[in-house]
Amino acid sequence: MKSYRKELWFDIKRRREFINITPEVESCLRESGVKEGLVLVNAMHITASVFINDDESGLHHDYEKWLERLAPHAPVDQYRHNVGEDNADAHMKRQVMGREVVVAVTEGQLDFGTWEQIFYGEFDGRRRKRVLVKIIGE
Amino acid sequence: MKSYRKELWFDIKRRREFINITPEVESCLRESGVKEGLVLVNAMHITASVFINDDESGLHHDYEKWLERLAPHAPVDQYRHNVGEDNADAHMKRQVMGREVVVAVTEGQLDFGTWEQIFYGEFDGRRRKRVLVKIIGE
Amino acid sequence: MKSYRKELWFDIKRRREFINITPEVESCLRESGVKEGLVLVNAMHITASVFINDDESGLHHDYEKWLERLAPHAPVDQYRHNVGEDNADAHMKRQVMGREVVVAVTEGQLDFGTWEQIFYGEFDGRRRKRVLVKIIGE
Repeated sequence: MKSYRKELWFDIKRRREFINITPEVESCLRESGVKEGLVLVNAMHITASVFINDDESGLHHDYEKWLERLAPHAPVDQYRHNVGEDNADAHMKRQVMGREVVVAVTEGQLDFGTWEQIFYGEFDGRRRKRVLVKIIGE
Repeated sequence: MKSYRKELWFDIKRRREFINITPEVESCLRESGVKEGLVLVNAMHITASVFINDDESGLHHDYEKWLERLAPHAPVDQYRHNVGEDNADAHMKRQVMGREVVVAVTEGQLDFGTWEQIFYGEFDGRRRKRVLVKIIGE
Repeated sequence: MKSYRKELWFDIKRRREFINITPEVESCLRESGVKEGLVLVNAMHITASVFINDDESGLHHDYEKWLERLAPHAPVDQYRHNVGEDNADAHMKRQVMGREVVVAVTEGQLDFGTWEQIFYGEFDGRRRKRVLVKIIGE
């Protein structure tokens, strides 16, 4: 069994951002030499997500608005977690979108449907953040 | 390490549908010959889910109503994604229910609690759709 | 390839509870002897979650309040599932928080960011419940 690990680092300028990280994960997969197996891609932060969906800017706008409706940022004092912090809503948004994805590796490729792309979803950014890529297989 | 891959195809008649795919996944597992390992089951579409819950029609009705409340289909023009499409809500419903499940394989069986069953959850159907089953182990 | 399996049992006193199970999962990992691989940790019940987030009591209070807003317990007769049961809301809360987590194992450790901790989230407790830990790797 082969195993491979890499951290991807991102300089997140804004509080909320969606970044397509599919090319970086594909490059990890090539580097790993794994042909059959599983890739785990997870946020290493608890106010961020890794998820699979469409690379379409209208949808990303809709996601942001929708998540804000489900878990509003303001007023920040509605959350007990917000003592010296203002990111409680980010912990909720991340649960809706998920922490991680597991993707099949087949013949050395991410085994994806037509529109599947991997995103890092940030809900409390404005600093450097990281994603873990772990690949196991043969 | 053994590895196994199969696509399950479904002809989805309605816009929304929940299908119990546990028997198909069990049949893949037998075919794979894997006794100890992991099964990944994921939707290959970005408006659909694979999730584990109860095979109870009342609950499925409740899920549909609840998801409609969290992410309403209409009015379709409330979503920027809906330019020549009307499925933005389906991209949201899928995030709540999840893209994939990972299930342990123990002694050649899906290692499940009493009530766990695997479902394909469709939110934008009325065409042929597919699910990926990937099994790794020994 | 090594594989390891253990059930963790918990006596859940209240209807809803969040339990930090990171030490138990770490102890499974040591027992398994796996140095590189993946850990799957999942609820074996369909009204409970395993998720990764912060070990902060204010946040857990916020989660409980937030989940109650997204999927209210009462009135119980708003759900068709509640025929001789009152736990339909728990099936929904569990979908928001997720069934399982998959964690990378690197050099014999859970490969975690600074604040990541694993929780069992119960939404229909007051009896004994269990979590599955499955580890594969080398």
